[in-house]
Amino acid sequence: MKQSAPMQNVRIDLDDRSYSIDIGTALLAGLADHAALPQGTAALIVTNETVQPLYGPALAETLEKRYPAVHTVVLPDGEEHKTWETLQRIFDVLLGQGCDRKVVLFALGGGVIGDMTGFAAACYMRGVPFVQVPTTLLAQVDSSVGGKTAINHPLGKNMVGAFYQPRLVVCDLETLDSLPARELAAGLAEVIKYGPIADMELFAWLEARMDALVARERGALAHVVKRSCEIKAAVVGADEREAGLRAILNFGHTFGHAIEAGMGYGVWLHGEGVAAGMVMAAHLSQRLGLVDGSFVERLTRLIERAGLPTRGPVLDAQDNAGRYLELMRVDKKAEGGEIRFVLIDGPGKAIMRAAPDALVREVIDQCCAS
Amino acid sequence: MKQSAPMQNVRIDLDDRSYSIDIGTALLAGLADHAALPQGTAALIVTNETVQPLYGPALAETLEKRYPAVHTVVLPDGEEHKTWETLQRIFDVLLGQGCDRKVVLFALGGGVIGDMTGFAAACYMRGVPFVQVPTTLLAQVDSSVGGKTAINHPLGKNMVGAFYQPRLVVCDLETLDSLPARELAAGLAEVIKYGPIADMELFAWLEARMDALVARERGALAHVVKRSCEIKAAVVGADEREAGLRAILNFGHTFGHAIEAGMGYGVWLHGEGVAAGMVMAAHLSQRLGLVDGSFVERLTRLIERAGLPTRGPVLDAQDNAGRYLELMRVDKKAEGGEIRFVLIDGPGKAIMRAAPDALVREVIDQCCAS
Repeated sequence: MKQSAPMQNVRIDLDDRSYSIDIGTALLAGLADHAALPQGTAALIVTNETVQPLYGPALAETLEKRYPAVHTVVLPDGEEHKTWETLQRIFDVLLGQGCDRKVVLFALGGGVIGDMTGFAAACYMRGVPFVQVPTTLLAQVDSSVGGKTAINHPLGKNMVGAFYQPRLVVCDLETLDSLPARELAAGLAEVIKYGPIADMELFAWLEARMDALVARERGALAHVVKRSCEIKAAVVGADEREAGLRAILNFGHTFGHAIEAGMGYGVWLHGEGVAAGMVMAAHLSQRLGLVDGSFVERLTRLIERAGLPTRGPVLDAQDNAGRYLELMRVDKKAEGGEIRFVLIDGPGKAIMRAAPDALVREVIDQCCAS
Repeated sequence: MKQSAPMQNVRIDLDDRSYSIDIGTALLAGLADHAALPQGTAALIVTNETVQPLYGPALAETLEKRYPAVHTVVLPDGEEHKTWETLQRIFDVLLGQGCDRKVVLFALGGGVIGDMTGFAAACYMRGVPFVQVPTTLLAQVDSSVGGKTAINHPLGKNMVGAFYQPRLVVCDLETLDSLPARELAAGLAEVIKYGPIADMELFAWLEARMDALVARERGALAHVVKRSCEIKAAVVGADEREAGLRAILNFGHTFGHAIEAGMGYGVWLHGEGVAAGMVMAAHLSQRLGLVDGSFVERLTRLIERAGLPTRGPVLDAQDNAGRYLELMRVDKKAEGGEIRFVLIDGPGKAIMRAAPDALVREVIDQCCAS
C-alpha cells in the first residue's frame, strides 16, 4: 500500500486573486469541506474520457454536498482536442444547463483540461470562478501556478487564451497512481528544470531521491510538487504578465518545442522534448563558456534516471540542424527571427541569450540520435 | 454643410488601464499624431463590409505613418456574425501575417466590431492593445466605456467574452453622417436611458434638443456623447467588474434582450429593443408604486420623438407574456431563475428588484403591439 502524506500548502500571493495550492492525499474526497471552495449555485466538472471513470464520480459525490447542482462534461483526451470546437462544448453544457455567473468550474485532468477549463472560466459571462484538480504530475508542478490558460489555433499552440487565476488548486497525490510511467517521467522533466535555473539544492535532492520519485513515494512527490510550485510562484510573482524574467521557465523548451513540432504533436510528450532540450541547452551553455562539462554530465545523468530521453530525434536526414533552426525561428519567443535561448550561467542561474548558428548546429549534431 | 465641433474629451480613470475618449470632428485623419496611440510593429484594422469603403482607406493611410505594417480584415456586417467563426477570421489574419505581441488592433465600426475586436485583443497571445474608432452613435455612447467585449453563443448573447479596456477611443462625429436613420435612433435609446437612471437634467436637455439630435447637429451630438460617456464612466468606475451598481445601466435591457432573442437577432436593433423595454420597465415601476404616470408618459413621448418603438412585439400568439418571461429567465442577470429588473425609483434613480410574475405579465400584455 502507498503511504499517506501530510497536507502541505503553497500560498500564491496576487492581492485579491491570491489562492492556495493544497498538496496531499485523500484531498479529493474531503473537498466539500474546504473553506476556500467558492460559493455557487452550481458546479461543472470538466474532465476527459480517460480521467472521468477514475475520479469523476468521487469528485461529483463530494461536490454534491456543497452545490445544489453538479454537472459534468467529458471531453475527448489529447492535445489535438485543445481547440475552439472542444471549448464550445463546455459553453454548450453551461448554457444548456442554465448556469449563471454563480457557477464554479472544476478542471479535473491534466494540462489540456486545465488550460481549456481555465479559459472557459475566463470567458463564460466574462468570468466565473474555477478550481483546478490536476491529475498529472506535469499539471501539478506546472499548470498550478501562473494563470496561463489557452487553446490552440491551427497556426500555432496556445495562441488564443487569457491570464486567469484559479480560486484553489488541489493536488491529490493519489491521482498520480493511475498515471502511465511515461507521463510521470514527462512531469519529472519540468521538476528537474527548476534545479539548473533556480535551485541547486532541489537538484541535489533529486539526485538523492530520484528512485523514490520514480517509485511514486508520496512523501517524495509531495516535496517536488511543493518546491516546484514555490519556485515557479517566485518567478511568476515577479513577472505575472510575462514581460521578461518569466522566460527562464522555458529552459529546454526552445529545442523541446522544435522536437514536438518536428515530430508532429503528440509523438514526443512535451516533457520528453523538454528533457532532450535541456541537455542541448546545457551543451550550448558549456560551449559558450557558461558552465563546465561536469554540470552537463550531472544534468544528463539525472534526466536519464527519470526515464527521460537525453538525445533529440533526427528531424531531417539531410540537414537535421537546419530543420531544428528553422522550427526554432517560428517559436513564440523568437523576436524578428532571432532565437533567444534560455542558458545556464553557472548552476542555479538562467539567462536569456542569442547564440551563433554555427555553434547551435554543432550542439544539435552532437546531441541527436543517429 | 455640417458644422465642425471643438474637440472634447472624457478621461476614464482605471489606474494603469486609464484611457481617453476623444470626441470631435476630423479626428480620424489626424490619428497618426495622437500621443496615446500604442507603440507597435504592426496594426490590424478590424472593420466590416459596410464601413470599410467609407473609412477604411483613410484610417489605413494615417496608421501607415505610425506602424511599419498595416493590415485590414473585413468582416461581414451584422449581429448574426458576432460569432466564434467570425472571430476566428481575426486570429487567422493575425497569425497568417505573423503578428506577434507587438500588434495593435483597431476596431473601426459599430458595437459588433468593437465587441469582437476587443475580445480578439483580449485573447490573442493572452492580450494585445486595442484602439476603438466607433462609427455609430450606439458604439460611441455605449461601447466606449466599460471594457465589455464578447461574442454571442447560439444559446445566448454576449455569453463568451472578457472585461478588457481599450488604450484610446476616438469618436469622430463625421462618421455619424453615413449612419442610417434607424441606427441613429437606436443609439439615442441608450442616450435617453441615462436620464431616468441617473440624470434628469440630461433628460430635460433631450426633451429640448431631440429635433437637433435627429437632424445630426454636431454640437448636440458632441454633448450627448460626452455626457453619456461621463455618466457611464461614473457608474462603471464604482463597479468595474459588474458586481452591483453597474447593473442599472441595463435599464430596459431585460425586456429588450427578450425582444431581440424572441424575434431572432438582427430583426429588432438592440436600441429598438431597449426603447420598448424602457417603456415596459417604466410601466412596471409605476405598477410597483415607484413612479407616477406622468413620468411614464414623458419617457414614452421622448422615445417616440427619437423615432423609436414604444411598444414591444408579440413573440408568441398563444402565450406572449409567458414567452417574454421564459426568455428573461435565461438572461445573464437572472439569478437562480429569478429575474432582477432595473426599475425607476423616482425619476433619476434606478434600483434592482424582482417583481411578481402576475404583475410582469400585466405589463407585457399592456405594452405589446397586438
